[in-house]
Amino acid sequence: MARINTLAIIGVGLIGGSLSLALKASGSVGRVVGVGRSRANLDEALKLGIIDDVVSIEVAAKADVIFVATPVAQMGTIFGALKPHLGAASIITDGGSTKQDVLAAAQSNLGDRVGAFVPAHPIAGTEKTGASAAFPTLYRDRKVVICRHDSVDPEAVNRVSDMWTAAGANVFPMTAKAHDDVFAAVSHLPHLLAFALVDMLAASPSADDYFKFAASGFRDFTRIAAGSPEMWRDISAANRVALRQQLADYRARLDAFDQWLAGGEARDIEQIEASFSRASHARNAWQRHIEHGESMPRLGAGGQEE
Amino acid sequence: MARINTLAIIGVGLIGGSLSLALKASGSVGRVVGVGRSRANLDEALKLGIIDDVVSIEVAAKADVIFVATPVAQMGTIFGALKPHLGAASIITDGGSTKQDVLAAAQSNLGDRVGAFVPAHPIAGTEKTGASAAFPTLYRDRKVVICRHDSVDPEAVNRVSDMWTAAGANVFPMTAKAHDDVFAAVSHLPHLLAFALVDMLAASPSADDYFKFAASGFRDFTRIAAGSPEMWRDISAANRVALRQQLADYRARLDAFDQWLAGGEARDIEQIEASFSRASHARNAWQRHIEHGESMPRLGAGGQEE
Repeated sequence: MARINTLAIIGVGLIGGSLSLALKASGSVGRVVGVGRSRANLDEALKLGIIDDVVSIEVAAKADVIFVATPVAQMGTIFGALKPHLGAASIITDGGSTKQDVLAAAQSNLGDRVGAFVPAHPIAGTEKTGASAAFPTLYRDRKVVICRHDSVDPEAVNRVSDMWTAAGANVFPMTAKAHDDVFAAVSHLPHLLAFALVDMLAASPSADDYFKFAASGFRDFTRIAAGSPEMWRDISAANRVALRQQLADYRARLDAFDQWLAGGEARDIEQIEASFSRASHARNAWQRHIEHGESMPRLGAGGQEE
Repeated sequence: MARINTLAIIGVGLIGGSLSLALKASGSVGRVVGVGRSRANLDEALKLGIIDDVVSIEVAAKADVIFVATPVAQMGTIFGALKPHLGAASIITDGGSTKQDVLAAAQSNLGDRVGAFVPAHPIAGTEKTGASAAFPTLYRDRKVVICRHDSVDPEAVNRVSDMWTAAGANVFPMTAKAHDDVFAAVSHLPHLLAFALVDMLAASPSADDYFKFAASGFRDFTRIAAGSPEMWRDISAANRVALRQQLADYRARLDAFDQWLAGGEARDIEQIEASFSRASHARNAWQRHIEHGESMPRLGAGGQEE
């Protein structure tokens, strides 16, 4: 791949910092410069060798590749600040968890330079934040979704793909709309569901007993409810159209469960078992897939294997 | 504690087998006899030293303590089969995950001997089943709920409490109704929610993409959806009154989230963040509690700390 002479990272936390460390480790980048709001965090990033310099956003705009790794709600403002100073061959990409809103923000704020923007989402992270949480192998064998759009420069897509490959990741193309639907289903909805349950139990007069007797199943089910409220608020708001669609399907399923439980006849209980059984079958197949690389059964069409 | 001369285990799987091994390890039991439907499993239990003999239910009924560790739906029939042969001083207890239904089954089937029945629920388990899954430390430092009822013999409660203490567990008294409410909230509802999500995603035309991009958050959230459909069907049906109450509260919360997402105004997004924030606060406090023994903040009354 073509080496990146200068990489600018805007928001030098776990996501941005780990990309720098991965590219440095593979010799794929020359100089890395950082932009951020917290001087203490930037000093930490300098000390850890994540960035070589702290620069202004005007200087960052001249880099070969500019990686925007801030919360998605801030990206529109950042694109607007980059635009007037952007280098003629500079490429912009991001690491946000939602893509239609980020693409719309780029279209509004980058104007005739939107072709230089490549929306991307690395599927990796930990519960930790800040430059000190970054490590060079965060992206090894992880997936990165890259979303082409109508006006994107194909050469910019290739450079961003190569960058992520050099960082150890596997790149998957997807439209921004398909991306947001998939992650509403497998990430944003589960987070909302876990937050909703823990908030409900904490608000109950029986809260003390609930948390006293909660065990390992509860621990795993609610682990994602320990996440950052601000980050998940932003993601929920940014992807609210797709999230509401998934939530509507899910609420309809809970309505059905309630009717079966209310009925309580043998045919109702059979429906409950049938749903549990399809879920258990799919979940166990997926576990074997992620652990041992077994192929997934064909799902869909009512949850039946074909 | 008074030693148990003969313990009968009806259903020699993970739960029943591990109790036998724990009591044998602590020298708290003389002879352990087993009753079960699968001869192969009973032979395995004999070979592993979990039981000393395979007996009929009529013989098991003469034991000092009879531990019923079958699925809860079978317990009524078992109580009925034990009743005519029950030893004059025999005590019956169980290991079921629901308690009001088991107590009702005992009241129906044990008649004037219901005072000898002590409903109990050891909060322990693994994903594995059968005698070969049993191990002597399953109950060490785990909680066991014991439910007194109006007609129970206090001496029987003491003997069952002592038995679980000898197995390494900590005993907590609770009414059957409080038990079923607590476990509907922290166990039965989360299972239903996880099964419902995985079934929904598996039934989607986008199922392949969903399972392809699902990551560690999804893995933990849905781990309990790999559980036994039959067991969770039985638990859902047995505890359907309490489960429906929790489900109604939960559905109301999802309705509120949908309205906030539909509104999309700043005040709506603040509501989402407030809920996420209360949940994250409680979940992190609970994590510190289970990991480091920190005391839980006082929750309840709208989820605010007092």
